[in-house]
Amino acid sequence: MSQHMAQHMAQAERKLANGKQRIDFNTDPQRYRHWKLAVDGAVATLTMDVDENAPLFEGYELKLNSYDLGVDIELADALERLRFEQPAVKAIVLRSGKPRVFCAGANIRMLAGASHVHKVNFCKFTNETRNAIEDASEHSGQRMICVVTGSCAGGGYELALAADHIILTDDGSSTVSLPELPLLAVLPGTGGLTRVTDKRKVRRDRADVFCTTEEGIKGKRAVEWRLVDEAVSNTKLDETVAARVREFAARSDRPKDGKGVALVPLDPRIAADSRDYKHVAVEFNRAGRLATVTLRGPDAPPPADAAAMTAQGADFWPLRLARELDDAILDIRLNEPDTAAIVFKSEGDPGAVLAHDDFLDRHKDHWLAREIRLKWKRVLKRVDLTSRSLVTLIEPGSCFAGTLAELIFAADRAYMLIGRHDGDNRKPAAIALGAANFGPYPTANGITRLHSRFLADGGQVEALRQSVGAMLDAKAAENLGLVTAALDDIDWDDEIRVFLEERASFSPDALTGMEANLRFGGPETMESKIFARLTAWQNWIFQRPNAVGEAGALRRYGTGQKPEFDTKRV
Amino acid sequence: MSQHMAQHMAQAERKLANGKQRIDFNTDPQRYRHWKLAVDGAVATLTMDVDENAPLFEGYELKLNSYDLGVDIELADALERLRFEQPAVKAIVLRSGKPRVFCAGANIRMLAGASHVHKVNFCKFTNETRNAIEDASEHSGQRMICVVTGSCAGGGYELALAADHIILTDDGSSTVSLPELPLLAVLPGTGGLTRVTDKRKVRRDRADVFCTTEEGIKGKRAVEWRLVDEAVSNTKLDETVAARVREFAARSDRPKDGKGVALVPLDPRIAADSRDYKHVAVEFNRAGRLATVTLRGPDAPPPADAAAMTAQGADFWPLRLARELDDAILDIRLNEPDTAAIVFKSEGDPGAVLAHDDFLDRHKDHWLAREIRLKWKRVLKRVDLTSRSLVTLIEPGSCFAGTLAELIFAADRAYMLIGRHDGDNRKPAAIALGAANFGPYPTANGITRLHSRFLADGGQVEALRQSVGAMLDAKAAENLGLVTAALDDIDWDDEIRVFLEERASFSPDALTGMEANLRFGGPETMESKIFARLTAWQNWIFQRPNAVGEAGALRRYGTGQKPEFDTKRV
Repeated sequence: MSQHMAQHMAQAERKLANGKQRIDFNTDPQRYRHWKLAVDGAVATLTMDVDENAPLFEGYELKLNSYDLGVDIELADALERLRFEQPAVKAIVLRSGKPRVFCAGANIRMLAGASHVHKVNFCKFTNETRNAIEDASEHSGQRMICVVTGSCAGGGYELALAADHIILTDDGSSTVSLPELPLLAVLPGTGGLTRVTDKRKVRRDRADVFCTTEEGIKGKRAVEWRLVDEAVSNTKLDETVAARVREFAARSDRPKDGKGVALVPLDPRIAADSRDYKHVAVEFNRAGRLATVTLRGPDAPPPADAAAMTAQGADFWPLRLARELDDAILDIRLNEPDTAAIVFKSEGDPGAVLAHDDFLDRHKDHWLAREIRLKWKRVLKRVDLTSRSLVTLIEPGSCFAGTLAELIFAADRAYMLIGRHDGDNRKPAAIALGAANFGPYPTANGITRLHSRFLADGGQVEALRQSVGAMLDAKAAENLGLVTAALDDIDWDDEIRVFLEERASFSPDALTGMEANLRFGGPETMESKIFARLTAWQNWIFQRPNAVGEAGALRRYGTGQKPEFDTKRV
Repeated sequence: MSQHMAQHMAQAERKLANGKQRIDFNTDPQRYRHWKLAVDGAVATLTMDVDENAPLFEGYELKLNSYDLGVDIELADALERLRFEQPAVKAIVLRSGKPRVFCAGANIRMLAGASHVHKVNFCKFTNETRNAIEDASEHSGQRMICVVTGSCAGGGYELALAADHIILTDDGSSTVSLPELPLLAVLPGTGGLTRVTDKRKVRRDRADVFCTTEEGIKGKRAVEWRLVDEAVSNTKLDETVAARVREFAARSDRPKDGKGVALVPLDPRIAADSRDYKHVAVEFNRAGRLATVTLRGPDAPPPADAAAMTAQGADFWPLRLARELDDAILDIRLNEPDTAAIVFKSEGDPGAVLAHDDFLDRHKDHWLAREIRLKWKRVLKRVDLTSRSLVTLIEPGSCFAGTLAELIFAADRAYMLIGRHDGDNRKPAAIALGAANFGPYPTANGITRLHSRFLADGGQVEALRQSVGAMLDAKAAENLGLVTAALDDIDWDDEIRVFLEERASFSPDALTGMEANLRFGGPETMESKIFARLTAWQNWIFQRPNAVGEAGALRRYGTGQKPEFDTKRV
């Protein structure tokens, strides 16, 4: 058991700051410690000004605009608010509030003392935040211009890489760099290598030089190598930024006069073994290492029109549910690492879910409806990338239709009850496909979950369009290949129990690797390359003694002692 | 240094069998211990019949047709010989020589006691062998039919997955399975998960069931789930195999009456710090952790015609050189793990290299010329996937043209001397592009190395066609973006020395991860997904205590003790 003890100790080294017991993903601009958000007409300025005395955990200071998960939670919140609360914002200027540093990247002391599980989930969340920036640019008409003055290193440059346009101050000292490899013996943890080759399309030998050059690259060379878009002298910086803002804003299709929707706090009721949101309930079975996430369907028909939707705002069922599901998933990822499997259930009227989907589809050109569907896309991607076994149980009273049916296809397995449970008088369960299953929610690898499911036969996906709107019982769903198995009441309890016990008995690591592969058959995109190729290599390196051992580079950083490496190439 | 000691000890646990000091990749059918190769007209039968008393290392027995690297070296040799020595063979039947087992997969005791570096390189080689099977099918007209009788588990099923067609005996007991996860807490190490989803296109929830079901799946269900192509009763097995052989052979374009080329032994002269082949010389600088691989150009013009090429056979320069380079790379990978960087040099006449390329291009429809180019493709892919820093040095007297210029583009960096070294009267170095750089040698991710280099501007690759055949000096090569830097004699020694010293000073693991990402920008294929996504996850799991720790599943397998897992999901 020695490895367990060692890991528990590494875990125990870090306590959340201020006596907190869990990481909270809910925040708002009034509470930000690290970011300033200012909106002026079509332009928002997001200023990174990290409070070094407000780390998420005890034991390190966030010097030089370095960041930890707490800083990124605020960034993610600011980006969400810009989408929903600021429909008029068409361009975001990202800059530093510190004079000689843009951002020093992820905090090294934080990394050196973090548990493996925290490091990996921290990187996953920061990756998702960067992807959300690109999603806002591509689909939501909010483009980001990053203004780099001072040193922009590691995760700082990776943040810049998520922007549409990088302006580097040409002052003889401002630089961009990815010094992780020479300095820390790890890789950039937030998509840096992949964005350098696949987004910036830097020539690969130059990328090799760049990623092994601790001091970074500045000025015209950074432009020539495609690492930034332009290098601008201090005197011309303001006018250049203003010009780029005008250009990018001019290409946006966001409304001039949309009324923003305030993202009210979710305020779940948190108990030892449960979380209760308005439309989501989470129950933990500690002994079984299970979290059951129950989604509740809408209790009213969709609003009459777009104005009524806007009036409902953050209480509009699809938006509220998406935010709650997102929060529940993040809570499980970061605060409940012992959870082996997430069981998805639902309660409600499948017809009412489809009616809401139809409403969103009819209003898909309205900025708010578009934002809500894009939010669902991101939340469902978050589910796909959650390293827990996912199983969806479809029973009487459930409402897995349209958007909610995506949780059937996101799951590693889905079981559906044939008929009724003994003593339950409700109608047998039915699922229903909708237009939402055929396009608006692609996975990280760029295809629909139905396509992912039927890679062998694209025709089958087309054929399923015939079933849109039909209430499919268990046998029909099984025959169409939509669920893993349809089970009788006699078998249900035992089958589900055996499956969940078995899942909890397997190696958590092997499950993570298996699921990361089986969930993403078929094509790859830059995004899926980041989550797969790059992340998997980074996770490997995060386990290697050369990085995290007693004499490894992360441990020795800042001690004056050089790291000692096992020189064998693997 | 405790982690170093521990790793050295793990390494030391395993000794090569029979007192051997290095792993030898050269073999021939006379020496096979594990395979029988029989050829009858257009059909070859490859029978796996592993000698349990002939493991590569001491300390385990190869029971139940389980395999280690030694078994796979013979398989790789047999496949190469079928291509070159048997031009008439159009179909290969793969079967087991043991009555109740097809293949039990990689030997578990071997894995449990192997060093991490050996495990990773073992998997890499077996992956390359499986890819070569698919390459022979797709490009060389040799299709493989796999006949499964008995248990076909883990690596055994992964071998079957490489075939075009899998026939499972429907006898109530023959099964296919991937029991790695439930049994050993690791993933299938030879592409299994990716081939299940991307080649066989098994529905992903069924793949989840399959990969967590230790006992495997048999008969009609295996067909329905697309795990095999047909399940055939014992009484109909022979006639079915014969029918499939006829069908596949009928679609082959291999010649009826080609004269095979015997793959003569390479017989390098092996000294402590060098390997000397006919056209390749390897020198090890132990202190600098460098291997310098020098390729020698042809010393004669190409043969007059295809008949003369066939007469030269294995001595034909491009074929001999490809085989020698392949052997040298494998030797460094498996026997020289301390090597940080491979330095490629060349000696000869670039015009003579281009003349050989032209000859192969003109005869590309001749089976032997086609095989030689396909061999180069595979060897260059082996270079790309070698976890060593790769640098190509281009100096006077070198012949990096056409096929050999691919080593400039495969390298992480390439440096070219401007003018002459002081005291050297030879002409300044020149490189030359040829048709070989524009198509026949795609990387694992399916694009040319030039395309990979110029992802930002596909037009630049087209523009480079204008330079085909031109002798490009250092400045011209630099201006065209073909080399990392052109250096004067004054700077050369220092620049190269500093670069190589720096490379040797970095964390070997971080370099492996960085290079695995920067070398493969752009699109992905099933092959690159296997080498990236899947392999990286597997390498991670191979480091995790849940698999390889004292109480991990690999160590505890067969002891009667259950493994103990850290239950946190990462």
